[in-house]
Amino acid sequence: MQKLKERIVNEGRVIGTGILKVDSFLNHQIDPQFTMEMGRELASRFAGEGITKVLTVEASGIAVATAAGLALGVPVVFAKKGRASTQDAGVYSARVYSFTRREAVDISVSGRFLGPDDTVLIVDDFLAHGEALRGLVEIVRQAGSRLAGAGIVIEKVFQGGREKLKGQGVRIESLAAIREMSEDRIVFL
Amino acid sequence: MQKLKERIVNEGRVIGTGILKVDSFLNHQIDPQFTMEMGRELASRFAGEGITKVLTVEASGIAVATAAGLALGVPVVFAKKGRASTQDAGVYSARVYSFTRREAVDISVSGRFLGPDDTVLIVDDFLAHGEALRGLVEIVRQAGSRLAGAGIVIEKVFQGGREKLKGQGVRIESLAAIREMSEDRIVFL
Repeated sequence: MQKLKERIVNEGRVIGTGILKVDSFLNHQIDPQFTMEMGRELASRFAGEGITKVLTVEASGIAVATAAGLALGVPVVFAKKGRASTQDAGVYSARVYSFTRREAVDISVSGRFLGPDDTVLIVDDFLAHGEALRGLVEIVRQAGSRLAGAGIVIEKVFQGGREKLKGQGVRIESLAAIREMSEDRIVFL
Repeated sequence: MQKLKERIVNEGRVIGTGILKVDSFLNHQIDPQFTMEMGRELASRFAGEGITKVLTVEASGIAVATAAGLALGVPVVFAKKGRASTQDAGVYSARVYSFTRREAVDISVSGRFLGPDDTVLIVDDFLAHGEALRGLVEIVRQAGSRLAGAGIVIEKVFQGGREKLKGQGVRIESLAAIREMSEDRIVFL
Protein backbone atom coordinates (compact mmCIF):
# COMPACT_ATOMS: atom_id res chain seq x y z
CA MET A 1 0.00 0.00 0.00
CA GLN A 2 1.93 2.96 -1.36
CA LYS A 3 0.41 5.63 0.88
CA LEU A 4 1.29 3.61 3.97
CA LYS A 5 4.90 3.19 2.86
CA GLU A 6 5.16 6.93 2.34
CA ARG A 7 3.79 7.66 5.79
CA ILE A 8 6.18 5.16 7.36
CA VAL A 9 9.13 6.85 5.64
CA ASN A 10 7.94 10.38 6.42
CA GLU A 11 6.62 9.93 9.95
CA GLY A 12 8.23 6.76 11.30
CA ARG A 13 11.07 6.85 13.80
CA VAL A 14 13.44 3.91 14.02
CA ILE A 15 14.84 3.27 17.50
CA GLY A 16 17.90 1.03 17.65
CA THR A 17 17.64 -1.79 15.15
CA GLY A 18 14.26 -3.27 15.99
CA ILE A 19 11.68 -0.70 16.96
CA LEU A 20 9.67 1.40 14.50
CA LYS A 21 7.50 4.08 16.07
CA VAL A 22 4.57 5.18 13.95
CA ASP A 23 2.90 7.03 16.79
CA SER A 24 1.52 9.77 14.58
CA PHE A 25 -1.09 7.64 12.81
CA LEU A 26 -1.15 4.10 14.21
CA ASN A 27 0.14 3.45 17.73
CA HIS A 28 -0.72 6.48 19.81
CA GLN A 29 -2.41 8.96 17.54
CA ILE A 30 -4.82 7.40 15.03
CA ASP A 31 -5.78 8.83 11.65
CA PRO A 32 -9.38 7.60 11.42
CA GLN A 33 -9.85 8.17 7.68
CA PHE A 34 -6.59 6.41 6.82
CA THR A 35 -7.42 3.62 9.28
CA MET A 36 -10.66 3.02 7.38
CA GLU A 37 -8.70 2.80 4.11
CA MET A 38 -6.27 0.29 5.61
CA GLY A 39 -9.12 -1.77 7.05
CA ARG A 40 -10.87 -1.86 3.66
CA GLU A 41 -7.65 -2.94 1.96
CA LEU A 42 -7.07 -5.77 4.44
CA ALA A 43 -10.69 -6.87 4.09
CA SER A 44 -10.46 -6.89 0.29
CA ARG A 45 -7.49 -9.26 0.38
CA PHE A 46 -9.64 -11.85 2.14
CA ALA A 47 -12.86 -11.28 0.18
CA GLY A 48 -14.64 -14.52 -0.62
CA GLU A 49 -13.23 -16.34 2.41
CA GLY A 50 -16.58 -16.27 4.23
CA ILE A 51 -15.15 -14.52 7.26
CA THR A 52 -17.50 -14.29 10.26
CA LYS A 53 -15.21 -12.68 12.85
CA VAL A 54 -12.19 -10.39 12.96
CA LEU A 55 -9.84 -11.14 15.86
CA THR A 56 -7.20 -8.77 17.24
CA VAL A 57 -5.47 -8.05 20.56
CA GLU A 58 -5.68 -4.87 22.59
CA ALA A 59 -4.77 -2.08 22.26
CA SER A 60 -3.31 -0.66 19.06
CA GLY A 61 -4.81 -3.32 16.77
CA ILE A 62 -8.35 -2.35 17.72
CA ALA A 63 -8.88 0.61 15.38
CA VAL A 64 -7.73 -1.08 12.18
CA ALA A 65 -9.50 -4.32 13.15
CA THR A 66 -12.73 -2.37 13.62
CA ALA A 67 -12.23 -0.83 10.17
CA ALA A 68 -11.72 -4.29 8.65
CA GLY A 69 -14.77 -5.64 10.48
CA LEU A 70 -16.83 -2.72 9.19
CA ALA A 71 -15.72 -3.42 5.62
CA LEU A 72 -16.51 -7.14 5.99
CA GLY A 73 -19.76 -6.56 7.88
CA VAL A 74 -18.74 -8.82 10.78
CA PRO A 75 -18.04 -8.38 14.52
CA VAL A 76 -14.56 -7.76 15.90
CA VAL A 77 -13.24 -9.54 18.99
CA PHE A 78 -10.22 -8.18 20.82
CA ALA A 79 -8.21 -10.51 23.03
CA LYS A 80 -7.56 -9.07 26.46
CA LYS A 81 -4.15 -8.87 28.03
CA GLY A 82 -3.43 -9.95 31.57
CA ARG A 83 -4.69 -12.90 33.52
CA ALA A 84 -8.20 -13.86 32.41
CA SER A 85 -10.44 -12.11 34.94
CA THR A 86 -13.13 -14.77 34.98
CA GLN A 87 -12.87 -18.51 35.29
CA ASP A 88 -15.77 -19.04 32.92
CA ALA A 89 -15.77 -22.37 31.22
CA GLY A 90 -14.52 -21.75 27.74
CA VAL A 91 -12.01 -18.97 28.07
CA TYR A 92 -9.35 -19.46 25.41
CA SER A 93 -5.91 -18.18 26.32
CA ALA A 94 -2.29 -18.16 25.23
CA ARG A 95 0.93 -16.82 26.69
CA VAL A 96 2.93 -14.51 24.43
CA TYR A 97 6.29 -12.86 24.94
CA SER A 98 6.66 -9.15 24.24
CA PHE A 99 10.17 -8.34 23.01
CA THR A 100 9.46 -4.61 23.39
CA ARG A 101 8.37 -4.90 27.03
CA ARG A 102 10.56 -7.94 27.79
CA GLU A 103 7.84 -9.81 29.58
CA ALA A 104 5.36 -12.60 28.98
CA VAL A 105 1.68 -11.72 29.00
CA ASP A 106 -1.44 -13.86 28.83
CA ILE A 107 -4.02 -13.00 26.21
CA SER A 108 -7.53 -14.40 26.39
CA VAL A 109 -10.88 -14.51 24.58
CA SER A 110 -14.23 -15.50 26.01
CA GLY A 111 -15.66 -18.71 24.58
CA ARG A 112 -18.90 -16.85 23.94
CA PHE A 113 -17.42 -14.97 21.00
CA LEU A 114 -15.50 -17.59 19.01
CA GLY A 115 -16.54 -21.11 18.11
CA PRO A 116 -16.48 -23.94 15.58
CA ASP A 117 -18.90 -22.13 13.25
CA ASP A 118 -16.57 -19.14 12.83
CA THR A 119 -14.13 -18.31 10.07
CA VAL A 120 -11.62 -15.87 11.51
CA LEU A 121 -9.46 -13.13 10.06
CA ILE A 122 -6.74 -12.05 12.50
CA VAL A 123 -5.83 -8.36 12.15
CA ASP A 124 -2.97 -6.62 13.90
CA ASP A 125 -0.94 -3.45 13.56
CA PHE A 126 2.50 -5.10 13.55
CA LEU A 127 4.05 -8.45 12.74
CA ALA A 128 7.52 -8.57 14.30
CA HIS A 129 8.73 -11.73 16.04
CA GLY A 130 5.29 -13.24 15.58
CA GLU A 131 4.51 -13.81 19.24
CA ALA A 132 1.15 -12.02 19.31
CA LEU A 133 0.12 -13.68 16.05
CA ARG A 134 1.18 -17.12 17.31
CA GLY A 135 -0.95 -16.56 20.43
CA LEU A 136 -3.96 -15.45 18.40
CA VAL A 137 -3.61 -18.46 16.09
CA GLU A 138 -3.49 -20.70 19.17
CA ILE A 139 -6.74 -19.13 20.42
CA VAL A 140 -8.41 -19.72 17.05
CA ARG A 141 -7.34 -23.39 17.24
CA GLN A 142 -8.67 -23.71 20.80
CA ALA A 143 -12.01 -22.30 19.64
CA GLY A 144 -12.17 -24.82 16.81
CA SER A 145 -12.69 -21.98 14.34
CA ARG A 146 -11.41 -21.95 10.78
CA LEU A 147 -8.54 -19.51 10.25
CA ALA A 148 -8.72 -17.55 6.98
CA GLY A 149 -5.41 -15.82 7.63
CA ALA A 150 -3.82 -12.75 9.12
CA GLY A 151 -3.96 -9.18 7.84
CA ILE A 152 -1.11 -7.04 9.14
CA VAL A 153 -0.50 -3.33 8.72
CA ILE A 154 3.31 -3.34 9.03
CA GLU A 155 5.45 -6.46 8.82
CA LYS A 156 9.08 -6.30 9.96
CA VAL A 157 10.21 -9.21 7.83
CA PHE A 158 13.71 -9.37 9.35
CA GLN A 159 12.30 -10.27 12.78
CA GLY A 160 11.07 -13.62 11.52
CA GLY A 161 7.40 -13.63 12.46
CA ARG A 162 6.30 -14.99 9.09
CA GLU A 163 8.88 -17.79 9.33
CA LYS A 164 7.67 -18.72 12.78
CA LEU A 165 4.10 -19.20 11.54
CA LYS A 166 5.07 -20.89 8.27
CA GLY A 167 4.84 -24.44 9.56
CA GLN A 168 1.22 -23.84 10.50
CA GLY A 169 0.19 -22.80 7.00
CA VAL A 170 -1.10 -19.38 8.02
CA ARG A 171 -1.75 -17.06 5.10
CA ILE A 172 -0.31 -13.64 5.95
CA GLU A 173 -1.05 -10.42 4.06
CA SER A 174 0.73 -7.24 5.08
CA LEU A 175 0.16 -3.71 3.77
CA ALA A 176 3.82 -2.76 4.12
CA ALA A 177 6.69 -5.23 4.54
CA ILE A 178 10.01 -3.87 5.78
CA ARG A 179 13.09 -5.84 4.76
CA GLU A 180 15.57 -3.78 6.73
CA MET A 181 15.68 -0.52 8.61
CA SER A 182 18.02 1.79 10.47
CA GLU A 183 17.81 5.33 11.75
CA ASP A 184 18.77 6.53 8.29
CA ARG A 185 16.62 4.46 5.99
CA ILE A 186 13.79 1.98 5.68
CA VAL A 187 13.85 -0.58 2.87
CA PHE A 188 10.62 -2.29 1.83
CA LEU A 189 10.35 -5.72 0.23
CA MET B 1 -29.93 6.66 22.24
CA GLN B 2 -32.81 4.21 22.19
CA LYS B 3 -31.04 1.42 20.32
CA LEU B 4 -28.18 1.46 22.81
CA LYS B 5 -30.55 1.24 25.78
CA GLU B 6 -32.24 -1.75 24.18
CA ARG B 7 -28.92 -3.52 23.63
CA ILE B 8 -27.88 -2.83 27.23
CA VAL B 9 -31.13 -4.35 28.50
CA ASN B 10 -31.02 -7.32 26.13
CA GLU B 11 -27.29 -8.13 26.18
CA GLY B 12 -25.89 -6.54 29.34
CA ARG B 13 -25.04 -8.60 32.41
CA VAL B 14 -24.99 -6.89 35.80
CA ILE B 15 -22.47 -8.34 38.24
CA GLY B 16 -22.98 -7.43 41.88
CA THR B 17 -24.14 -3.85 42.24
CA GLY B 18 -21.54 -1.96 40.26
CA ILE B 19 -20.35 -3.82 37.18
CA LEU B 20 -22.19 -3.89 33.86
CA LYS B 21 -20.72 -6.21 31.24
CA VAL B 22 -21.57 -5.32 27.66
CA ASP B 23 -19.00 -7.65 26.19
CA SER B 24 -21.09 -8.57 23.19
CA PHE B 25 -20.83 -5.20 21.44
CA LEU B 26 -18.55 -2.82 23.35
CA ASN B 27 -15.91 -4.23 25.71
CA HIS B 28 -14.68 -7.46 24.21
CA GLN B 29 -16.62 -8.02 21.01
CA ILE B 30 -17.24 -4.87 18.97
CA ASP B 31 -20.12 -4.28 16.58
CA PRO B 32 -18.39 -2.06 14.01
CA GLN B 33 -21.54 -0.72 12.33
CA PHE B 34 -23.15 0.17 15.65
CA THR B 35 -19.87 1.66 16.88
CA MET B 36 -19.90 4.00 13.87
CA GLU B 37 -23.47 5.08 14.73
CA MET B 38 -22.49 5.79 18.32
CA GLY B 39 -19.41 7.72 17.23
CA ARG B 40 -21.49 9.84 14.85
CA GLU B 41 -24.03 10.55 17.60
CA LEU B 42 -21.31 11.64 20.05
CA ALA B 43 -19.73 13.82 17.36
CA SER B 44 -23.06 15.46 16.51
CA ARG B 45 -23.56 16.54 20.12
CA PHE B 46 -20.35 18.57 19.94
CA ALA B 47 -20.79 19.92 16.40
CA GLY B 48 -19.72 23.55 16.12
CA GLU B 49 -17.23 23.30 18.99
CA GLY B 50 -14.25 23.43 16.62
CA ILE B 51 -12.82 20.17 17.88
CA THR B 52 -9.32 19.34 16.62
CA LYS B 53 -8.58 16.13 18.56
CA VAL B 54 -10.48 13.25 20.12
CA LEU B 55 -8.82 11.88 23.26
CA THR B 56 -9.49 8.48 24.84
CA VAL B 57 -7.64 5.87 26.89
CA GLU B 58 -6.77 2.33 25.86
CA ALA B 59 -8.28 -0.12 25.29
CA SER B 60 -12.06 -0.33 25.02
CA GLY B 61 -12.56 3.36 24.29
CA ILE B 62 -10.51 3.19 21.10
CA ALA B 63 -13.15 1.90 18.69
CA VAL B 64 -15.87 4.43 19.51
CA ALA B 65 -13.30 7.25 19.75
CA THR B 66 -12.08 6.35 16.25
CA ALA B 67 -15.69 6.46 15.03
CA ALA B 68 -16.16 9.91 16.60
CA GLY B 69 -12.88 11.12 15.11
CA LEU B 70 -13.95 9.87 11.69
CA ALA B 71 -17.26 11.72 11.97
CA LEU B 72 -15.50 14.93 13.07
CA GLY B 73 -12.65 14.55 10.57
CA VAL B 74 -9.96 14.85 13.26
CA PRO B 75 -7.21 12.59 14.69
CA VAL B 76 -7.74 10.43 17.75
CA VAL B 77 -5.15 10.15 20.52
CA PHE B 78 -5.32 7.29 22.99
CA ALA B 79 -3.62 7.67 26.35
CA LYS B 80 -1.41 4.71 27.21
CA LYS B 81 -1.61 2.82 30.45
CA GLY B 82 1.40 1.93 32.54
CA ARG B 83 4.45 3.95 33.36
CA ALA B 84 5.32 6.33 30.54
CA SER B 85 7.92 4.43 28.55
CA THR B 86 9.93 7.46 27.51
CA GLN B 87 11.17 10.39 29.52
CA ASP B 88 10.62 12.74 26.60
CA ALA B 89 10.15 16.32 27.59
CA GLY B 90 6.45 16.94 27.38
CA VAL B 91 4.84 13.68 28.32
CA TYR B 92 1.57 14.49 30.06
CA SER B 93 0.47 11.97 32.67
CA ALA B 94 -2.05 11.37 35.42
CA ARG B 95 -2.62 8.63 37.97
CA VAL B 96 -6.09 7.11 38.01
CA TYR B 97 -7.59 4.49 40.27
CA SER B 98 -9.48 1.57 38.75
CA PHE B 99 -12.29 0.40 41.03
CA THR B 100 -12.76 -2.71 38.88
CA ARG B 101 -9.12 -3.77 39.10
CA ARG B 102 -8.51 -2.19 42.52
CA GLU B 103 -5.25 -0.62 41.52
CA ALA B 104 -3.85 2.73 40.49
CA VAL B 105 -2.49 3.08 36.97
CA ASP B 106 -0.64 5.88 35.23
CA ILE B 107 -2.00 7.10 31.91
CA SER B 108 0.09 9.24 29.59
CA VAL B 109 0.05 11.13 26.32
CA SER B 110 3.01 12.33 24.30
CA GLY B 111 3.38 16.09 24.12
CA ARG B 112 3.70 15.79 20.35
CA PHE B 113 0.00 15.08 19.95
CA LEU B 114 -1.75 17.60 22.21
CA GLY B 115 -1.02 21.27 22.67
CA PRO B 116 -2.37 24.78 23.26
CA ASP B 117 -3.85 25.03 19.77
CA ASP B 118 -6.08 22.00 20.28
CA THR B 119 -9.73 21.82 21.22
CA VAL B 120 -10.31 18.36 22.66
CA LEU B 121 -13.31 16.04 22.87
CA ILE B 122 -12.75 13.24 25.37
CA VAL B 123 -14.53 10.02 24.40
CA ASP B 124 -14.81 6.89 26.54
CA ASP B 125 -16.94 3.76 26.74
CA PHE B 126 -17.95 4.15 30.41
CA LEU B 127 -18.30 6.87 33.00
CA ALA B 128 -18.45 5.24 36.42
CA HIS B 129 -16.56 6.77 39.35
CA GLY B 130 -15.00 9.28 36.98
CA GLU B 131 -11.39 8.36 37.59
CA ALA B 132 -10.40 7.80 33.95
CA LEU B 133 -12.23 10.97 32.91
CA ARG B 134 -10.59 13.00 35.70
CA GLY B 135 -7.19 11.77 34.52
CA LEU B 136 -7.93 12.63 30.89
CA VAL B 137 -9.14 16.10 31.88
CA GLU B 138 -5.90 16.57 33.85
CA ILE B 139 -3.91 15.65 30.73
CA VAL B 140 -5.87 18.16 28.64
CA ARG B 141 -5.07 20.86 31.26
CA GLN B 142 -1.38 19.93 31.25
CA ALA B 143 -1.33 20.25 27.46
CA GLY B 144 -2.91 23.69 27.67
CA SER B 145 -5.64 22.56 25.26
CA ARG B 146 -9.23 23.76 25.36
CA LEU B 147 -11.66 21.07 26.56
CA ALA B 148 -14.94 20.95 24.62
CA GLY B 149 -16.33 18.22 26.84
CA ALA B 150 -16.67 14.48 27.22
CA GLY B 151 -18.77 12.08 25.16
CA ILE B 152 -19.54 8.84 26.98
CA VAL B 153 -21.28 5.72 25.72
CA ILE B 154 -22.66 4.44 29.04
CA GLU B 155 -22.85 6.52 32.21
CA LYS B 156 -23.50 4.81 35.53
CA VAL B 157 -24.94 7.89 37.20
CA PHE B 158 -25.13 6.31 40.67
CA GLN B 159 -21.33 5.95 40.84
CA GLY B 160 -20.85 9.70 40.95
CA GLY B 161 -18.47 10.38 38.09
CA ARG B 162 -20.43 13.37 36.83
CA GLU B 163 -20.54 14.86 40.34
CA LYS B 164 -16.78 14.44 40.68
CA LEU B 165 -16.15 16.48 37.52
CA LYS B 166 -18.85 19.07 38.21
CA GLY B 167 -16.59 21.54 39.95
CA GLN B 168 -14.40 21.69 36.86
CA GLY B 169 -17.23 22.69 34.55
CA VAL B 170 -16.81 19.76 32.21
CA ARG B 171 -19.71 19.29 29.81
CA ILE B 172 -20.63 15.60 29.73
CA GLU B 173 -22.88 13.95 27.15
CA SER B 174 -23.75 10.28 27.51
CA LEU B 175 -25.66 8.07 25.08
CA ALA B 176 -27.24 6.01 27.87
CA ALA B 177 -27.38 7.05 31.53
CA ILE B 178 -28.18 4.36 34.09
CA ARG B 179 -29.79 5.58 37.31
CA GLU B 180 -29.82 2.22 39.06
CA MET B 181 -29.24 -1.40 38.19
CA SER B 182 -29.37 -4.88 39.68
CA GLU B 183 -29.24 -8.38 38.29
CA ASP B 184 -32.97 -8.12 37.61
CA ARG B 185 -33.37 -4.72 36.06
CA ILE B 186 -31.67 -1.65 34.65
CA VAL B 187 -33.32 1.76 35.09
CA PHE B 188 -32.27 4.61 32.81
CA LEU B 189 -32.49 8.29 33.68
